Amino acid sequence: MMPRRIYKVAVLGARGLVGQWLVKMLSGHPWFKLTALTSHEAAGAKYGKSVRWMAGGSMPAEAAELELVESDPKKIDADIVISALPTEAAKRLEPEFAREGFAVISKAAAYRLEERVPLIVPEVNPDHLQLLEAQRSSWNGLLVADPNCTTTILALPLKPIADAYGIRKVVVTTLQAASGAGYPGVPSLDLIDNVIPYIPGEEEKVRDELLKIMGSARGGRVEWARFEVAATCTRVPVLDGHLESVYVETEKPVDTDEAAKLMREFRGRPQELKLPTAPETPLVVLEGVDRPQPRFDRMAGSVPGMSVTVGRVRRGSSERSLMFLALGHNLVRGAAGSALLLAELLVAEGYV
Amino acid sequence: MMPRRIYKVAVLGARGLVGQWLVKMLSGHPWFKLTALTSHEAAGAKYGKSVRWMAGGSMPAEAAELELVESDPKKIDADIVISALPTEAAKRLEPEFAREGFAVISKAAAYRLEERVPLIVPEVNPDHLQLLEAQRSSWNGLLVADPNCTTTILALPLKPIADAYGIRKVVVTTLQAASGAGYPGVPSLDLIDNVIPYIPGEEEKVRDELLKIMGSARGGRVEWARFEVAATCTRVPVLDGHLESVYVETEKPVDTDEAAKLMREFRGRPQELKLPTAPETPLVVLEGVDRPQPRFDRMAGSVPGMSVTVGRVRRGSSERSLMFLALGHNLVRGAAGSALLLAELLVAEGYV
Amino acid sequence: MMPRRIYKVAVLGARGLVGQWLVKMLSGHPWFKLTALTSHEAAGAKYGKSVRWMAGGSMPAEAAELELVESDPKKIDADIVISALPTEAAKRLEPEFAREGFAVISKAAAYRLEERVPLIVPEVNPDHLQLLEAQRSSWNGLLVADPNCTTTILALPLKPIADAYGIRKVVVTTLQAASGAGYPGVPSLDLIDNVIPYIPGEEEKVRDELLKIMGSARGGRVEWARFEVAATCTRVPVLDGHLESVYVETEKPVDTDEAAKLMREFRGRPQELKLPTAPETPLVVLEGVDRPQPRFDRMAGSVPGMSVTVGRVRRGSSERSLMFLALGHNLVRGAAGSALLLAELLVAEGYV
Amino acid sequence: MMPRRIYKVAVLGARGLVGQWLVKMLSGHPWFKLTALTSHEAAGAKYGKSVRWMAGGSMPAEAAELELVESDPKKIDADIVISALPTEAAKRLEPEFAREGFAVISKAAAYRLEERVPLIVPEVNPDHLQLLEAQRSSWNGLLVADPNCTTTILALPLKPIADAYGIRKVVVTTLQAASGAGYPGVPSLDLIDNVIPYIPGEEEKVRDELLKIMGSARGGRVEWARFEVAATCTRVPVLDGHLESVYVETEKPVDTDEAAKLMREFRGRPQELKLPTAPETPLVVLEGVDRPQPRFDRMAGSVPGMSVTVGRVRRGSSERSLMFLALGHNLVRGAAGSALLLAELLVAEGYV
Repeated sequence: MMPRRIYKVAVLGARGLVGQWLVKMLSGHPWFKLTALTSHEAAGAKYGKSVRWMAGGSMPAEAAELELVESDPKKIDADIVISALPTEAAKRLEPEFAREGFAVISKAAAYRLEERVPLIVPEVNPDHLQLLEAQRSSWNGLLVADPNCTTTILALPLKPIADAYGIRKVVVTTLQAASGAGYPGVPSLDLIDNVIPYIPGEEEKVRDELLKIMGSARGGRVEWARFEVAATCTRVPVLDGHLESVYVETEKPVDTDEAAKLMREFRGRPQELKLPTAPETPLVVLEGVDRPQPRFDRMAGSVPGMSVTVGRVRRGSSERSLMFLALGHNLVRGAAGSALLLAELLVAEGYV
Repeated sequence: MMPRRIYKVAVLGARGLVGQWLVKMLSGHPWFKLTALTSHEAAGAKYGKSVRWMAGGSMPAEAAELELVESDPKKIDADIVISALPTEAAKRLEPEFAREGFAVISKAAAYRLEERVPLIVPEVNPDHLQLLEAQRSSWNGLLVADPNCTTTILALPLKPIADAYGIRKVVVTTLQAASGAGYPGVPSLDLIDNVIPYIPGEEEKVRDELLKIMGSARGGRVEWARFEVAATCTRVPVLDGHLESVYVETEKPVDTDEAAKLMREFRGRPQELKLPTAPETPLVVLEGVDRPQPRFDRMAGSVPGMSVTVGRVRRGSSERSLMFLALGHNLVRGAAGSALLLAELLVAEGYV
Repeated sequence: MMPRRIYKVAVLGARGLVGQWLVKMLSGHPWFKLTALTSHEAAGAKYGKSVRWMAGGSMPAEAAELELVESDPKKIDADIVISALPTEAAKRLEPEFAREGFAVISKAAAYRLEERVPLIVPEVNPDHLQLLEAQRSSWNGLLVADPNCTTTILALPLKPIADAYGIRKVVVTTLQAASGAGYPGVPSLDLIDNVIPYIPGEEEKVRDELLKIMGSARGGRVEWARFEVAATCTRVPVLDGHLESVYVETEKPVDTDEAAKLMREFRGRPQELKLPTAPETPLVVLEGVDRPQPRFDRMAGSVPGMSVTVGRVRRGSSERSLMFLALGHNLVRGAAGSALLLAELLVAEGYV
Repeated sequence: MMPRRIYKVAVLGARGLVGQWLVKMLSGHPWFKLTALTSHEAAGAKYGKSVRWMAGGSMPAEAAELELVESDPKKIDADIVISALPTEAAKRLEPEFAREGFAVISKAAAYRLEERVPLIVPEVNPDHLQLLEAQRSSWNGLLVADPNCTTTILALPLKPIADAYGIRKVVVTTLQAASGAGYPGVPSLDLIDNVIPYIPGEEEKVRDELLKIMGSARGGRVEWARFEVAATCTRVPVLDGHLESVYVETEKPVDTDEAAKLMREFRGRPQELKLPTAPETPLVVLEGVDRPQPRFDRMAGSVPGMSVTVGRVRRGSSERSLMFLALGHNLVRGAAGSALLLAELLVAEGYV
């Protein structure tokens, strides 16, 4: 599909890693035009002069020339605002933007669990956008939340499993990349010849966000899913790409070949709508016995970095359990790309 | 305790990483004297000239001077033989040594699951040594197996949990060090900025060996434990130290503080006997929210590298589940040190 | 320019890293068509089934379908043969191919220092191709050597300096990537938290090859350059990209700004001829005080990986000395890309 | 020798990496007793509660119990003060301590090049302590500077070469460890699969400090050495241990075997005095063709980490040039250990 017009997009908190990937992915976007970039620390400076570019290739020339402004609704000309603000700033500023009529897509954790804020993985629960109705009374615009990177990468392969077999329990251990902690992030002295088996707040986010995303929306409300979730999140010496070791217990017996096939054939609303940032297949099921691997598979998919790769789909410890490994690019499918896909979904579904 | 005499010990397959750690730990040992080192490839050469030393510090001078011989019972003067042979060679040679009267302790996988071969973690199942009775009919000596490194590191913290609460299910994801694959082992091109989510045969070993070790020995036989085990084994860019993310379901409800206390206070037969290589506490429960970490904790314990460190002991997804992280030095507690401790146990219990 | 026709190209030793990059860069090449891939170990198998792809992205489909053959001139239909054979095989086979009429471009070290074999960096010494005259008496085809990766990356920035100021001495320390040693290459246990300050034979290659390349060709012979070269080659925990710390003493006083400008404006014969694999600028002089860095700069250039980046151009310890850092992708500009550029040069200059 | 009494030692800036190593090396010291630890940020807290211990093993119990105080001469009871303060604080506070009668040994860069402050590598230029005479007019105590880690590691192997052959020029490229930048220091995102070819201010420090150290002291003044120094300093993915690739031009022709012998036999004043922290041999010349390597050699020496290892001693590009690699532990010989050795020298020579 093609929208009626080009939409203006602003990125709040544009200097961080997620902001940089948003700038990168917005360059040459067929529907969107980047009109504003914000930064509190560097307002007034040219983007090109105030950012250490770490998103691969070179900075898009049009972005380099933009002057950074404060995250102030009055200073920004945009239809859609994608926020990569730190949590505290997000908490304060995102509702302001929503009130002033902007469509706000938030990468921050601030409002993800709010009752009237939809928390969306576009292929998994696009119907949760119905929560937006409840926002109309207070805001001229809207606010939609994009989940934590680890949650998104987990929710995608779980969706077809949940639909086919029902989920009773998820036990997941993640091996997360350094870039998930931003820049400067994790010191070298903590990650050379080492692993850190703890990421503050991450395990609770995975559990709560997953249950909300996998919940059912009816009558403008979301009832959270009820299965058990037990997560352990670790940081490993990898640049990009979160690897997740997943064990699932299901309601019904699972046939592993069928489960792999269901993942391979899984498509969602973004694929139906042929959204520009939607990969042809949200899940790529790999054959190799030792895949997925972060360095080789994080850029998988017809839109690089937007597919989650899945490997080693196998029986768990009973006929009602399944195991697999999933890998996604934390800054693309886990952050900038998913926010962009969500923006496209909002446009395509007429919310913007 | 002190044994009646000094025992002569030979190391088969002495040039590999496990062999080197055995040589290191035998140097200055109060009960044992290293009398022979074997190598098929380098027989005839001085040990010091044919080994690239990677076990820390410098090679013990007395070992450097030993001449490597073939793994032939006739060429070796020893009471105890510790085998770090590759599986195929172990399969062929270890029974020969047992037949000729040596007490053989095997680090190889060849006989671990054999019915009449005890598979021992000295603190966990020393009573399984009763299987040795069944060997007397065929051999003048004996053969005892030391488990896979990953299994040993897992069995230790599970033991007090099993005793107190009963185990129904174990879901474990491991983050294993490069040294577990030996030298040269894993290429740099596979581990820089990467993780390999598969180690051939490892997950089956963890499951089968764990069930045998945790089984009960009666009347000269071991009945394997019956709980479910679901393991995922990965290789991470770490030199030494296997980290294991463990989720356990128990028969009875678990109190996490009590569980941590049980681990902290856990002692086994080696501690009772005050064996030279027995750490004061087999488990060290760490306080830090982000521990254990391989680089900082792998050498934990009063005998460096012989304690398994445990951290983040916490409730799982129900009152009958428990989660924690465990870390052990794969070449010490997971290999050379555990084999040595087993040798000491055999002496102390009068089997040698 | 466009050649009169499409040339058929075979790659000898196609399964290694250099072979893979050749396959990758030949895919979609405007002048060349890949017609044969050879391998001694895997002859008879499909390329796609017998190679672990490590050259980024996915293997070109047309190459995947090719059946590997032995490196035998009779079995190969090609105009140009690019050899990534190991030295010993190269020594034996490359002259056979040259004799049989193929234009052979060799990545091997076997013949680089042979008197009648031109050793070419296309931007630096294309005139050395005049040595080919001397080959006509013995061979129907020809043999041209591509230098060692480290040498090529060093020769490019030295060329404009030599032309402007004359060179008396070069002291260089290299920090070379793991991929330079091939696959499996350097073990993880040697490169995690470590550097190896020695690469067998590399320092001699750098010195000898550099002096031959920078020498002058007259009357069908090359007189080697005479300056002093002192090289130290080390291996660092980097995947791709050799970094070189260069100190040069010159005949004439150097102005560092001018030297940087000369590098920036340096162009060679491939740029004049607009060869398909020629980057617009062979040298990219970076502004950042802490550049070039392997991960960020190795794919520099209008043809990714074909430009050498130079940074920190500064005065040495006297007015007749200059210092800088140079970085090149060892598998692209240092190997596959340079061989391909050389093939294009041979075509454009009418040697093929 | 044994001093007349036990000396009280305070460490300023005790929470950083250098401070931690000082605390570690002072534990059990035969001459010194740790009496005070300072920190501006954490004054009032117990050392054990306010430090993330990264110096290996576990924190000495007696230090853990000390309460951190401000760096104020009035609050400290000590004979000797070792300062690991940041440069600005050092500039302000160290002279205060000297004025108040403390013997101050500074690891900071603030006063290293001051005319009346001796800059000492104990084995290289102990005679420079004569500069202390000039301090008596202004201070009751004294101030001695310990060089930059990279300089110390370079000065040690250069000393016997300078004595035997005279030095005309030094070209050095360093591969420095992450710990040299302190904690948190270098982000993981900058060092995974990467090298940073620049360390702010380091190259100037190496040049200036080296020339001062290698200078000659006469009549209470130091005349700097006059040879050329050209340094390039890089940061590599290594935890500890700076590796230096050294090229030296000499006044007289060099015999490389003799040069290696001179290094091997080199001893200094600390060895004569048998100072507790003096290694038996300041230089360990390694045989292996691929040594020294940071992970294997950084703890070399009879006092671990106090010897510089040297390898690959070989001819440079002429008979008057020599090349070698040197490696030293940047936090031990390059910082805490050298400061402690200097403190011991001051005591032994009667300055304290």
